[in-house]
Amino acid sequence: MSTSLILSRRFSTEIRKMSKVLTLETINPHVRKMEYAVRGPIVQRAGEIEKELKNGVKKPFKEVIRANIGDCHAVGQKPITYLRQVVGCCVYPPLLEDANLPSDVKDHAKYILGGCSGGSSGSYTHSAGIELIRKDVAAYISKRDGFACDYNHVFLSTGASDAIKIVLKLLMTSDPANPAGVMIPIPQYPLYSATNAEYGAYQINYYLDEDNKWGLDVNELQRALDANREKCTPRAICVINPGNPTGQVLTRENIEEIIKFAKREKLFILADEVYQHNIYAEGYKFHSFKKVLSELGKDYENVELASFMSVSKGYMGECGMRGGYCEVVNLDPDVRAQLMKSISAKLCPNTPGQAAIDVVVNHPQPGQPSYDLYMKERTQVLADLNKKAKMTTKLLNEIEGVKCNEVMGAMYAFPNITIPEKAIKAAAEKGQAPDAFYCFQLLEETGICVVPGSGFGQREGTYHFRMTILPSIPQIEMLLQKFKTFHMNFLNKYN
Amino acid sequence: MSTSLILSRRFSTEIRKMSKVLTLETINPHVRKMEYAVRGPIVQRAGEIEKELKNGVKKPFKEVIRANIGDCHAVGQKPITYLRQVVGCCVYPPLLEDANLPSDVKDHAKYILGGCSGGSSGSYTHSAGIELIRKDVAAYISKRDGFACDYNHVFLSTGASDAIKIVLKLLMTSDPANPAGVMIPIPQYPLYSATNAEYGAYQINYYLDEDNKWGLDVNELQRALDANREKCTPRAICVINPGNPTGQVLTRENIEEIIKFAKREKLFILADEVYQHNIYAEGYKFHSFKKVLSELGKDYENVELASFMSVSKGYMGECGMRGGYCEVVNLDPDVRAQLMKSISAKLCPNTPGQAAIDVVVNHPQPGQPSYDLYMKERTQVLADLNKKAKMTTKLLNEIEGVKCNEVMGAMYAFPNITIPEKAIKAAAEKGQAPDAFYCFQLLEETGICVVPGSGFGQREGTYHFRMTILPSIPQIEMLLQKFKTFHMNFLNKYN
Repeated sequence: MSTSLILSRRFSTEIRKMSKVLTLETINPHVRKMEYAVRGPIVQRAGEIEKELKNGVKKPFKEVIRANIGDCHAVGQKPITYLRQVVGCCVYPPLLEDANLPSDVKDHAKYILGGCSGGSSGSYTHSAGIELIRKDVAAYISKRDGFACDYNHVFLSTGASDAIKIVLKLLMTSDPANPAGVMIPIPQYPLYSATNAEYGAYQINYYLDEDNKWGLDVNELQRALDANREKCTPRAICVINPGNPTGQVLTRENIEEIIKFAKREKLFILADEVYQHNIYAEGYKFHSFKKVLSELGKDYENVELASFMSVSKGYMGECGMRGGYCEVVNLDPDVRAQLMKSISAKLCPNTPGQAAIDVVVNHPQPGQPSYDLYMKERTQVLADLNKKAKMTTKLLNEIEGVKCNEVMGAMYAFPNITIPEKAIKAAAEKGQAPDAFYCFQLLEETGICVVPGSGFGQREGTYHFRMTILPSIPQIEMLLQKFKTFHMNFLNKYN
Repeated sequence: MSTSLILSRRFSTEIRKMSKVLTLETINPHVRKMEYAVRGPIVQRAGEIEKELKNGVKKPFKEVIRANIGDCHAVGQKPITYLRQVVGCCVYPPLLEDANLPSDVKDHAKYILGGCSGGSSGSYTHSAGIELIRKDVAAYISKRDGFACDYNHVFLSTGASDAIKIVLKLLMTSDPANPAGVMIPIPQYPLYSATNAEYGAYQINYYLDEDNKWGLDVNELQRALDANREKCTPRAICVINPGNPTGQVLTRENIEEIIKFAKREKLFILADEVYQHNIYAEGYKFHSFKKVLSELGKDYENVELASFMSVSKGYMGECGMRGGYCEVVNLDPDVRAQLMKSISAKLCPNTPGQAAIDVVVNHPQPGQPSYDLYMKERTQVLADLNKKAKMTTKLLNEIEGVKCNEVMGAMYAFPNITIPEKAIKAAAEKGQAPDAFYCFQLLEETGICVVPGSGFGQREGTYHFRMTILPSIPQIEMLLQKFKTFHMNFLNKYN
């Protein structure tokens, strides 16, 4: 193509762009700034490779192994039968006449439909969700923690992500010169950084301690806050427990320290507790922020907390259902009213997702016809995850140049990888982060799709990736074997 | 209570509030500003009254008639069997073995599940929705308009509201001193004003012409824009067709004028076309903005458009499913990429809602086992709505002091009501808008729940309310009879 033609094309492109309302230059700069690595360029490339394989393009592998996202059913986990039966009846009530379905399923579905206007799951619900499901959530929380939960402090949501965004929104200022400061862990789940970018919040990074099982050190919280408090109005701290992408499980003492820090510094706590069912480490259990906060007593009744839960994780893995809930604690009643108002324009969370969360908090009990099957399926999923967590930790640590903290909970390993200087230079030449460079090569050579640590944040000079522990045991063995070979070759190539 | 006790309580409340992060004073001021009348105080009062009735409190009526929200199934509309069968199979695949279900239902569900990772509706989908459903949407649009639609320009959403908010977000500036100007009709559906408030947009009101069937006059668009362009960067115009709350249907010529105006003034068009199946007026039909824009040809290929559709309205009325789609037209490819990135952190719309929208755009065809029943149900719902639209228009206009434009489409009447001076004064004394004062009395005396016109916006000095035409024919007759008596008494009382 001649230079003049290129120039004239460029010129006409400029003209074309100039005459549109929205261009990269004019689009909301907050949107431009946001990134969400879990579905970022490497995952898009994985999708392209899948299409190439379908079209017969030769590759050194037969299929893409998606270990990038906690998408349980996508990699073979089976749904919990009872959950699908109940939601199925809510969507298609003639199933209530099916003689093959257990009576508790039918009773449960009738109970939920009884909470729907006109008895139909096709009706709008209250913006905070169906009242009886909110009451079931409150009963679940009360039983879990041993402290009362008022259903008026619970709202249902379209997955946990939706609720997290709703609560963060309340905390924003409208003054770009004095933005709300939101503390988030590094590494973090990128929903937080994406939402901070979208809302124009000032992000305060606190670093988890990789040398101490990804522990959360309150001195580091203090350091991070002190270093940034002049640049914003600090308003909130986000904690993910069990951790994503890091898989750590916080001790009760640690949670208490965090709450005391939040009180001292007047911070609203957002507790992402979607992995509360997913604990694998010996001697550890899940402590909810609500429980610890309640145990601290009256002096802490001004510490505001929002806790988030989802149907996507746990043993359910119903990511596509988009069900979740949020409990708010110690909110000013006027603020709670504003919160409820703020969700009203979106009308309501989807009813199948609401029904699914009801099953999670209100599952079959001993003596009910569905109890045995339900427990068997639930136990099996969690036992498998436990096995895979231990296996992944072990196999990763057997590889030279790879170091991985124990996967104590959640669904991910976040290994530390050695990347040689030569590779770091090669990455820089391509304009890529070193771990993105590494993960792209891993994908192109083995079909394994993981997410570079840079998408979650990490200490400068360290490199990681996040992989899920969700594929089947033989698949994970195969994946890690392939990974080992790749990593050795990579080290050889760049050392 | 003694004055000192009151004061000390007030003081301790202040202290308590001061030590929280979030109070009415510190909450995000955009959230504080937003209002959503369709679920506002009058609807909350209706809920309280329902509870009072349940608890045996005596009222001059036996039940609340909810004519405040377009919630079809809540007031007795039955779901479309085929839709629920397909979605039911997607949620509960053992139904695929049910000998009583038609083969096309099973084929359809298998087809959708084939588009889900791992074959499960419990998996995350692409953030823009399942690819084959996006292709079905594109095929529906192409057939509807006679102009090609590329599925890459379609994304599925959690109801239309979600998509509208996604597109408006792209248009925002991040500079409060120079906000994005968004033109919205008055009266409007309050999602628009709520979203503008939430995002800090500058709202430019253009008035629909009540004396001309709620027509949209381009001179009024020009007036509104000229009067406000110094206060903002005008970027978008929202049009609701068929109208909500006004029920008007735009002519093709009118749409053409709006598009020419948008081109001239460089405005992004948001076309809320969720009522595209709901047209009742003789001689009128639905013209999509996409079609008219395409007919205008090459000179208009820089006019950016987003069109919204939902499973909640039409003949489906599946409000609880939260399904919808958006087609974007003439977007800069870089901007489209940003749009897709912006929705990735929310992961994906719920899969049952996605399956539901697929049924809407890909419904049974002649010769398929489900065709006859599907057509019968669909035709019945639309024929009933047609009857109710005509009946409501007629009966309202028979009442002294009430004037109502023809309900040409959508699901609402928006009658103009005479409110006597004495009532306006009485309302002012209570700190209420005159029509809110009126609607509260209507609710307390008759149980009829409608939304005051002030929640949608109206010309100063005029008063309206929005009522749905969704209750059954006998219910609407009864409702309007009760309303007539109330209105006569109200006029007598305050004249």
